[in-house]
Amino acid sequence: MLLLRRCQGLTRCGCLAPQRAQAAAFGAVRLTSSSSHDRRSEHPGWRQALAGLLAGTGAVLAYGLHHHKAQQTEGISVHAKAQTAPLPIFSQEEVTKHRTLQDGVWVTYKGGVYDITEFVTMHPGGDKILLAAGGALEPFWALYAVHNQDHVLDILSEYKVGELKAEDQKKQQSLTTSDPYSSDPERHPVLRVNSQKPFNAEPPPEILSDSYITPSAFFFKRNHLPVPQVDPASYELQVQGLPGGVLRLSLEDLKRRFPKRTITATLQCAGNRRSEMNTVKQVKGLNWGIAAISNATWGGALLRDVLQAAGYGPDVAPWARHVQFEGLDKDVTGTTYGASIPLSKAVSEEGDVLLAYEMNGEPLPADHGFPVRVVVPGTVGARNVKWLSKITVSADESGSHWQQNDYKGFSPATDWDTVNFKSAPAIQELPVQSAITAPADGAVVFRSGEELTVKGYAWSGGGREVVRVDVSLDGGKTWQVARLRGGGGDEEQAPEVSPPPGRAWAWKLWELTAPLPPDARQLEIVCKAVDNSYNMQPDTVAPIWNLRGVLSNAWHRVKVNISEDEE
Amino acid sequence: MLLLRRCQGLTRCGCLAPQRAQAAAFGAVRLTSSSSHDRRSEHPGWRQALAGLLAGTGAVLAYGLHHHKAQQTEGISVHAKAQTAPLPIFSQEEVTKHRTLQDGVWVTYKGGVYDITEFVTMHPGGDKILLAAGGALEPFWALYAVHNQDHVLDILSEYKVGELKAEDQKKQQSLTTSDPYSSDPERHPVLRVNSQKPFNAEPPPEILSDSYITPSAFFFKRNHLPVPQVDPASYELQVQGLPGGVLRLSLEDLKRRFPKRTITATLQCAGNRRSEMNTVKQVKGLNWGIAAISNATWGGALLRDVLQAAGYGPDVAPWARHVQFEGLDKDVTGTTYGASIPLSKAVSEEGDVLLAYEMNGEPLPADHGFPVRVVVPGTVGARNVKWLSKITVSADESGSHWQQNDYKGFSPATDWDTVNFKSAPAIQELPVQSAITAPADGAVVFRSGEELTVKGYAWSGGGREVVRVDVSLDGGKTWQVARLRGGGGDEEQAPEVSPPPGRAWAWKLWELTAPLPPDARQLEIVCKAVDNSYNMQPDTVAPIWNLRGVLSNAWHRVKVNISEDEE
Repeated sequence: MLLLRRCQGLTRCGCLAPQRAQAAAFGAVRLTSSSSHDRRSEHPGWRQALAGLLAGTGAVLAYGLHHHKAQQTEGISVHAKAQTAPLPIFSQEEVTKHRTLQDGVWVTYKGGVYDITEFVTMHPGGDKILLAAGGALEPFWALYAVHNQDHVLDILSEYKVGELKAEDQKKQQSLTTSDPYSSDPERHPVLRVNSQKPFNAEPPPEILSDSYITPSAFFFKRNHLPVPQVDPASYELQVQGLPGGVLRLSLEDLKRRFPKRTITATLQCAGNRRSEMNTVKQVKGLNWGIAAISNATWGGALLRDVLQAAGYGPDVAPWARHVQFEGLDKDVTGTTYGASIPLSKAVSEEGDVLLAYEMNGEPLPADHGFPVRVVVPGTVGARNVKWLSKITVSADESGSHWQQNDYKGFSPATDWDTVNFKSAPAIQELPVQSAITAPADGAVVFRSGEELTVKGYAWSGGGREVVRVDVSLDGGKTWQVARLRGGGGDEEQAPEVSPPPGRAWAWKLWELTAPLPPDARQLEIVCKAVDNSYNMQPDTVAPIWNLRGVLSNAWHRVKVNISEDEE
Repeated sequence: MLLLRRCQGLTRCGCLAPQRAQAAAFGAVRLTSSSSHDRRSEHPGWRQALAGLLAGTGAVLAYGLHHHKAQQTEGISVHAKAQTAPLPIFSQEEVTKHRTLQDGVWVTYKGGVYDITEFVTMHPGGDKILLAAGGALEPFWALYAVHNQDHVLDILSEYKVGELKAEDQKKQQSLTTSDPYSSDPERHPVLRVNSQKPFNAEPPPEILSDSYITPSAFFFKRNHLPVPQVDPASYELQVQGLPGGVLRLSLEDLKRRFPKRTITATLQCAGNRRSEMNTVKQVKGLNWGIAAISNATWGGALLRDVLQAAGYGPDVAPWARHVQFEGLDKDVTGTTYGASIPLSKAVSEEGDVLLAYEMNGEPLPADHGFPVRVVVPGTVGARNVKWLSKITVSADESGSHWQQNDYKGFSPATDWDTVNFKSAPAIQELPVQSAITAPADGAVVFRSGEELTVKGYAWSGGGREVVRVDVSLDGGKTWQVARLRGGGGDEEQAPEVSPPPGRAWAWKLWELTAPLPPDARQLEIVCKAVDNSYNMQPDTVAPIWNLRGVLSNAWHRVKVNISEDEE
């Protein structure tokens, strides 16, 4: 499952493996360049091959396909021929000239020079692969550790066209040997790791429902890039785009010039519960369970206050529609993580958007954006930009990959051949969600206990308060209403009164204790939540399936077996 | 189906029939008074009897049950005995003394005096029946025309205890002969009438999808009470609850003192598509089809502006949480229709709440609230109070029946024995919705047409824009994406650009033209919409079933038959 867990990186990495293998599997790939779309059209089966690769049989299958291709194309492949002849020596300067499809796309890897022009159009992430053009692959492969497998090298070798000049190899060394993740912080071993580099991990579900406030160490981690190391003394936040010019704030400025507000808000990854979508049909992304969601108390300055200090006012920027955020986390090309939210959310009195420097009463941990992150309550995690460096008031959304070509929802009918990222809005508010944290799927419960306690969480985006959770012990035929904890006043940490309308940023934990049905041997436990706009969760996964596996909020189901005797 | 269509009135009327019959059906009803809850607990089958009554077999069934009861109780019923003896004469003054359970509850009807004390606790609407105590039933029965059936009189007769003094009968005449609905306006005959008194009707679905703006005559009508006749010259709107005292506005004041704003907003009844819930299990309410939703352009003053003119400001009323509305429509006791919305919605710059005096460019029609109604975009129809007389800024929600004990959603597990109206929030924003307007369920489509065009509407509450509608021709197995009309720029009446975030008040009409599946004899066409919070409609009706049949927004399904030959 290693390949699967890390495959999200494919959308913006230098990965050569899967599509090369897919194309090879169908034997008819022309070695001249053509558009990605054309090639895919010629080979309708490529998706199944990709599914197979991603599903974990990747290494073996790709190797097999590679050999198959090698046999088929022997004698016609210029590359196959090239490998038998002595290879020319190229300077880094020469390599660097090959950065476009017109000029050819060359890369280096461990002293070899590779012409990957023909592979570019087969790359699942499209043009993103061009970021590696003219330079070394190593830093990209360090960033996206999925490449560290033999069969990837094996496929790359097909494209070798020469060797890099010895002195240029030496110059590259510092670039190619450093691990951009070497400064990542230590993490708690209880976390279930979906990807080490970048680090993505979730807590065990049963931990979630034991605490209204998730301890920071257990809060799910979702990094897109290496954790940047930021010196709080020299940290500077730029606020720009307004007529008054750029406002520059140190960490101390942020703490002293603006009133400190604390807000308890739940963050959820768009990919939470993605693994359930994978059971319908393979999707592309980290294979999150049900715990890519957590709840914390954030302390910081209101973005609204900071924007006003930067000159924002009702008639100051009538063209403004969005507020863009840029992080300090960046890839080897210097591209930083970025996202945006609607201006109306940013400046609303009820929006409660924070520039947070505290999490659960402590300075932000490194994994959660030290020294400053945006917390956009009610909004998908991806817009809560960490290691915040720049805020831009703008007429347009962020142009970042993650705003434009990722984190959007599509119809189950949409596949990678037909997807048009412009046709769907960037995810902002998330739909109503709930899941069962205990018992676990496959657990055994003992008849002698007579009663069963089911626990879970429920949350909705946009500040919509969860008002009810229905639980079924018979797969959805009959329902019981769970007791809500959090917002209901019976939890030590949970607020005693309901939040104002439209500002319910925190989840509700819930619990149901019910008699075990007398004759059942197995129970299918189901939960579904309702928010105060009376939105409900959809019944099943398949009709909301989407190629990126986001927005997975169908009823959550777990099966438990009833044992008649307890030892 | 007459009874069924009118049964919503039961919650606040003087109806004697159904529960009397139910109770009778189980033979063990004590003739002493006890709480409603107790009696129901004794007779778990009463719900089925009610379901039967409501399902349209009412008249016959109730009559049968009445006879059954009469036989069982013969010789022990004080009322049965009373009917054989000469009956005493009572003055109106004497009758009026019997207005409580302690003093007995007496009513008059066509010169007869009836002691209905024992029936009070069996009334589905609970204490509401006490409004009729001490007086004449006629005006109530005129208001709730469900009573105009023989078996209701038949059951009432059991409770007869005397005759009303002749001169008091004469005095009553004006009260008992007037029809409170006699001034209701003429309506277009194309409307499908769910209830004549009060008037509730919806247009044929195919009309809906033919026009982005629904002509006012076809706009669904949902009246709770008779249409009041209002003289625009003497009309006065009171705005109260703020420290500055009461602001009184004439219609002219409203038009001249405040800028006129026009807003295109879709209104939907909470009970839209209730008929689909009835197919799962009988619910209480008007049997709406899919067309209790329409779209109009409203013109008027912003409520926000009017509240500011009345003295509202950021720190003026820190205790304020709600804005209550009162209509001029009232029942015979003088109780007016009322509702409230959160203050935050009322005063928000983005809330767009209108005090509308125009609908589609003309003065409001009588059925839609002439001269002034509230239009609360994105919010359930019930809060869009018509014939508006009073606006109250308040710490509390409206105390009206419709805010407190109606228009709320419950779990499918909640029935009339267990329902606690305080446990659920009043419906405000509605969930995402869509329906197929053409072809109609059961339609025949001809194979020779080769292609099928499916049309419908989609809308979501809270200003959330519908961003996609998925259509299936195979019952939900595979999906195609429909073309959205409205907001997309290709409709003459629809706006050319998307509305600002959170302010998408108008529906989208949609259309899909697709080849007929080659071998199919029947198609199950399904639609589901997605809004920009990526909320989805639930797959099926049963898990969202609720006793009042509100919030019916499961996937809409129609079956059509394919005919191989066209005549």
